[in-house]
Amino acid sequence: MNLIGKKVRIRAKNRIFEGIVMPSFTGNFVLKLENGYNVGFKEYELIEVVEESLPRGDVKRIEHKEGLPNIKIISTGGTIASKVDYRTGAVTSQFTAEEIVSEVPELAEFCNIDAELLYNILSENMKPENWVELAKHIYEALKHYDGVVITHGTDTMHYTAAAISFMVSTPKPIIFVGAQRSSDRPSSDAAMNLICAAKAATADLGEVGVVMHATTSDDYCYIHRGVKVRKNHTSRRDAFQSINARPIARISYPSLEIEWLFWRFRRNERELNLNAKIEKKVALIKFYPGLSSEILDFYHSKGYRGFVIEGTGLGHVSTDWIETIKKIAEDSVIVMTSQCLWGRVCDRVYDTGRYLLKAGVIEGEDMLPEVALVKLMWLLGNYSLEETKKLIKKNFVGEIEPRTDYW
Amino acid sequence: MNLIGKKVRIRAKNRIFEGIVMPSFTGNFVLKLENGYNVGFKEYELIEVVEESLPRGDVKRIEHKEGLPNIKIISTGGTIASKVDYRTGAVTSQFTAEEIVSEVPELAEFCNIDAELLYNILSENMKPENWVELAKHIYEALKHYDGVVITHGTDTMHYTAAAISFMVSTPKPIIFVGAQRSSDRPSSDAAMNLICAAKAATADLGEVGVVMHATTSDDYCYIHRGVKVRKNHTSRRDAFQSINARPIARISYPSLEIEWLFWRFRRNERELNLNAKIEKKVALIKFYPGLSSEILDFYHSKGYRGFVIEGTGLGHVSTDWIETIKKIAEDSVIVMTSQCLWGRVCDRVYDTGRYLLKAGVIEGEDMLPEVALVKLMWLLGNYSLEETKKLIKKNFVGEIEPRTDYW
Repeated sequence: MNLIGKKVRIRAKNRIFEGIVMPSFTGNFVLKLENGYNVGFKEYELIEVVEESLPRGDVKRIEHKEGLPNIKIISTGGTIASKVDYRTGAVTSQFTAEEIVSEVPELAEFCNIDAELLYNILSENMKPENWVELAKHIYEALKHYDGVVITHGTDTMHYTAAAISFMVSTPKPIIFVGAQRSSDRPSSDAAMNLICAAKAATADLGEVGVVMHATTSDDYCYIHRGVKVRKNHTSRRDAFQSINARPIARISYPSLEIEWLFWRFRRNERELNLNAKIEKKVALIKFYPGLSSEILDFYHSKGYRGFVIEGTGLGHVSTDWIETIKKIAEDSVIVMTSQCLWGRVCDRVYDTGRYLLKAGVIEGEDMLPEVALVKLMWLLGNYSLEETKKLIKKNFVGEIEPRTDYW
Repeated sequence: MNLIGKKVRIRAKNRIFEGIVMPSFTGNFVLKLENGYNVGFKEYELIEVVEESLPRGDVKRIEHKEGLPNIKIISTGGTIASKVDYRTGAVTSQFTAEEIVSEVPELAEFCNIDAELLYNILSENMKPENWVELAKHIYEALKHYDGVVITHGTDTMHYTAAAISFMVSTPKPIIFVGAQRSSDRPSSDAAMNLICAAKAATADLGEVGVVMHATTSDDYCYIHRGVKVRKNHTSRRDAFQSINARPIARISYPSLEIEWLFWRFRRNERELNLNAKIEKKVALIKFYPGLSSEILDFYHSKGYRGFVIEGTGLGHVSTDWIETIKKIAEDSVIVMTSQCLWGRVCDRVYDTGRYLLKAGVIEGEDMLPEVALVKLMWLLGNYSLEETKKLIKKNFVGEIEPRTDYW
């Protein structure tokens, strides 16, 4: 019997507990108690199901308002999904448009919402396969809606946003949004981020963005380009930052005015297209003093033909790597990025860099290592090795900025 | 015949070239020509040695001034060493106190300089063995000098600074300094950084610092704590930033006034001590979507017993890593850090984190992944596995800040 979402009474640890059954990733039986805490049990005895379905409170069927843009919200899980969970006591599998709007009624003022629960997973568990499936759902939604919002755990949101950027050519906004603090905390950013994300999804934009708090206050969000953003703090609400680019726009809260800050793909500038194949055997390797180049051999022997190196400084590794690189570059693509994260790789300045280029390394320009990884997975999934070697340096969606200004 | 540093005339590519022979890492024969460019030759024919030693110009024996602090400069190579190279036309093996002071005469105003050339290597080629040797040289120098300055390539300077922080307990300043732009560029930061570094080495400080430009102007340098600093830009002069800590001090230029900004170890607060053993078999692994946990098995099978994971967010990896982690943690130390870089790992918030802790992962608190790597190498070199598991969470030199403020 699937108990998830039901209110039950159990006996465990010689006591009686009552609460709502939560999904669990570990086989434990998890109850959300009346006081809001989740408790896990290895062993328990079910006494009774107290309520088959959850009380919905003031959740009403929302009416579709003519003249407002239509937005599809696709949920993949993460802290932001706990917004809906927590207040209603419902689990995320109850994720419906009605619930979202009853939680965040501001949304209904400027758009019509439909919702779809695709996953309920923590974002550290997102896999390249999930990107492919998500891309297909977004592609379908874009045929019918004016914009799509994807709620996502923040841990790997920038990886997924980069993947969708390459996979889906879009005439409309595709907006990723997450929350750093769940809604049981007074400082939760979930509602404001979601409102700003929905606003971005109605905007004159035709690309993938990430919408999160721009500051530690509740004053505005940024729309970051999906291929130029990174989570740079474990817990701050303004953890996401554009790197080697400016944010695309600032959305004031609560006025929801949009101020454009940077170049952008505008609505209807590109055709809708899906190209969601991916090659998973691509390795991202962070170099550090003492790291042996045998890590390259290890992956190569397992059939990997794509390598992104997070080198030091302008894009370096120890010179004793050069022989291995030369050998592996014969049938592989090796892209150099920098663990500095900010700035551009330039292997023509120092000897080491020039020898790396000669050995077959390709400069990743100012791409983030994470974005170069996703791009290389996507290129190798869709193009030959030789084509990939050329295309990795081609700018597709703004992942390479021609100029390196001091942002 | 060792020609390095000599002025020679050669025949190559059917032409005659004259210049100073430079050290080379690739077997090529490299000449610094009159116009300042370096040219490499695969084949050449020596016509004659024009000058056995280099013209020293205005280089004079500097006198030791009573009452001024005595500073030892140890050179390991990198862009900053090219300062002395370039103007005199000399190679770094000519690195003497006289030459440094003739290039940067401001130094003689506030300290007596002795210089030692330890290495002339690009910092991407620094190895843990080099840290050990450098630590011994610093330790010896600290017996006789009031402070030590280490010139270092910027690529891995923060790794070396962290290693020396753990290896050398010091009552005096140990100051690392580099340059982002070589002295043949008008924007070179070499001289100002070196002056500020020497000033820091005379200060009321008893720990390892990194001194670099604080801004893109020539207005002041920061002293960063050696275990709290990172190179965050490939080319900017203010690339080094303190992370999860404030810089220890700001040094105004050219006044050289020091303003203390944060807590510090003061001069003579600690005893001089050397503890330079290191275990090289420690792996730093950056997690990303799709990365298989077989990378742990790979290193473990090669005898590695130390692992630093750069997890996502608060310190996560995919839950399908947990079984491998549990197995490997039985005879290894696994430390979790965050690829966010800023903020603190906290594995008690989400399920994944709690399962990781249960599997044996140790939270790396707010340590940078690079610092956790170096610390774990050092701990495993000096302590048992069980001791290391306890000591990795102990704060030795400021690598863990008890509070996480928003720096």
